[in-house]
Amino acid sequence: MSNFKSKIKTIEWVENYSKMVDQTLLPEEFKYVNITTGDSMYKAIKTMIVRGAPAIGVAGAHGVVLYAQELAKENISRDEFINKLLKKADYMASSRPTAVNLMWAVKKQKEIVKKSQSDIKGIVEELKANAIKLENEDIEINKKIGDFGAEVVPKGATILTHCNAGALATVGYGTALGVVRSAFANDPTVKVFADETRPRQQGARITTLELTMDGIPTTLITDGMCSYFMKKGMIDMVVVGADRIAANGDTANKIGTYTVAIAAKYHNIPFYIAAPLSTIDTSIKTGDEIIIEERSREEVTHINGKIICAPDVNVINPGFDVTPNELITGIITEKGILKPDYKKSILEAFNC
Amino acid sequence: MSNFKSKIKTIEWVENYSKMVDQTLLPEEFKYVNITTGDSMYKAIKTMIVRGAPAIGVAGAHGVVLYAQELAKENISRDEFINKLLKKADYMASSRPTAVNLMWAVKKQKEIVKKSQSDIKGIVEELKANAIKLENEDIEINKKIGDFGAEVVPKGATILTHCNAGALATVGYGTALGVVRSAFANDPTVKVFADETRPRQQGARITTLELTMDGIPTTLITDGMCSYFMKKGMIDMVVVGADRIAANGDTANKIGTYTVAIAAKYHNIPFYIAAPLSTIDTSIKTGDEIIIEERSREEVTHINGKIICAPDVNVINPGFDVTPNELITGIITEKGILKPDYKKSILEAFNC
Repeated sequence: MSNFKSKIKTIEWVENYSKMVDQTLLPEEFKYVNITTGDSMYKAIKTMIVRGAPAIGVAGAHGVVLYAQELAKENISRDEFINKLLKKADYMASSRPTAVNLMWAVKKQKEIVKKSQSDIKGIVEELKANAIKLENEDIEINKKIGDFGAEVVPKGATILTHCNAGALATVGYGTALGVVRSAFANDPTVKVFADETRPRQQGARITTLELTMDGIPTTLITDGMCSYFMKKGMIDMVVVGADRIAANGDTANKIGTYTVAIAAKYHNIPFYIAAPLSTIDTSIKTGDEIIIEERSREEVTHINGKIICAPDVNVINPGFDVTPNELITGIITEKGILKPDYKKSILEAFNC
Repeated sequence: MSNFKSKIKTIEWVENYSKMVDQTLLPEEFKYVNITTGDSMYKAIKTMIVRGAPAIGVAGAHGVVLYAQELAKENISRDEFINKLLKKADYMASSRPTAVNLMWAVKKQKEIVKKSQSDIKGIVEELKANAIKLENEDIEINKKIGDFGAEVVPKGATILTHCNAGALATVGYGTALGVVRSAFANDPTVKVFADETRPRQQGARITTLELTMDGIPTTLITDGMCSYFMKKGMIDMVVVGADRIAANGDTANKIGTYTVAIAAKYHNIPFYIAAPLSTIDTSIKTGDEIIIEERSREEVTHINGKIICAPDVNVINPGFDVTPNELITGIITEKGILKPDYKKSILEAFNC
């Protein structure tokens, strides 16, 4: 497995508290914050100090440990401890109701509490151990994705990516940027072009930051520029993350991804999705069934709090788009790279 | 010809001064400024209070009139007046050395001075009349482009445009947005989608402003979103301006145009260029010969003076890209819509 040492650990359990990058301060400041109580973890998730579905899941698991530590100091019975803790866990899971990983991770912690044979102190220790296990698993899955992806990165390649599917969206390695890290570990001549990713600029604000911190040569471009560089032969492949993948391989990802995929096709450049199998939703047949969230007009009309357009202009702000499977060269997962026909290869990946 | 009444006159000669929109204040303020001396016109062009090649040309012509008015008040002979004025005209032409329209318009004024049989007062009047003539000609050419373009706009169409090829880049009607204005005058159900156009955001800052001022329904989108709306069937055609067109129809325009053209092709949506014949440079055979200006990194890394990325990230910032002729449905000019084979149709347009 890749021995690439990233400088970034987005979230980490340290002794008796949770340490995380405060993502509300990026890119001006890269600062860690220590979350020492359950209530402050609830707030950290809600106010997006921590963001990115896998990172939020681990944050929720940490939050349950923090509540357990607090309750362990109260003079209460084991039964009362368990009863109170399960309620606190449900509260933690409600901090961002749409992130599936959060519910999943809190549920894992609740199972520990329910099944444990230990005393109060023992339960706290088991919860801690499980939180650290979830952290490590997230990184392991990312590293597997990275290593499978690295196999299809040509020598000295320049990889274009969109948005941030990186260490800062996960515990610490990334999916699309996990592929970049594994490829760079093998071949230090690998380079990245990062799309700015308007409106929220995750490419500029987050991707350029985490890649330059890890010493990976990165060029920032605006979203409209991708074709210009493709035509010049300066882009060898595209790798992006995914928010949801349908059973036929159609992939929802950050708005703008579909435009990049079309440009890649026009220039015959390989276009890959990098995502864990948990992102694939086999209950939906095609991308047409994926509901696209419409976000606030201010994300488009204002930058850094200042208006950039006519105040009364109409705005439509879809947060995601769907790239049809015909534009996707492969889907890089922890079980290998799935290729068309995706309906078949996705089914096989889940069954093996 | 279209009787559409635009609220916008970017630059206009009024009695004895030049009145123009101060474009450095957009979109926060839409304010006119009166330029009353030759030196202040030089500064207005240099500091981009007035921008857009056709608008700058007229500004230069106005500037020569302003210098003439000043010299006419001095107690000097007719010969001395002419001598001094020609020197001042050359100085005016140097305010922005790359804008061809500026040199061309100042040259037209110098010819008036050299050929005139009048006294000093008479020369000033002749220069004034010529400046106003240049203003009117610019609008007439734009209206012809607009009217030819309107013929290919379907009933109730939504037109996507990129950057600003509008009233605020010309004297007052626009090329791509001239097509929009003429189409809207015929059919008030016509609508516009405006690309933001990063990095300088002319689509957001200028296009949304001038269209909403004229009451034309306009939706602002970010550059990466175009394909999303094309796939949904919400875009019926694309019309953009041009900075330079080669003899084979390859067209240089604001960076990001090429990406939109590829997306339009993928969705079978017509993609038009709107530009006066003066934009066509028959001395260059193909777009490969067009030199692309690289602009400052700060245009990409900073918005409204604030950094949006890792401070040490690499940046490449091409100001323009070239859309190959195979992606262009037609070139809308004041002599009609040129169609492929462009090599042939461009030659014919210049010879008829």
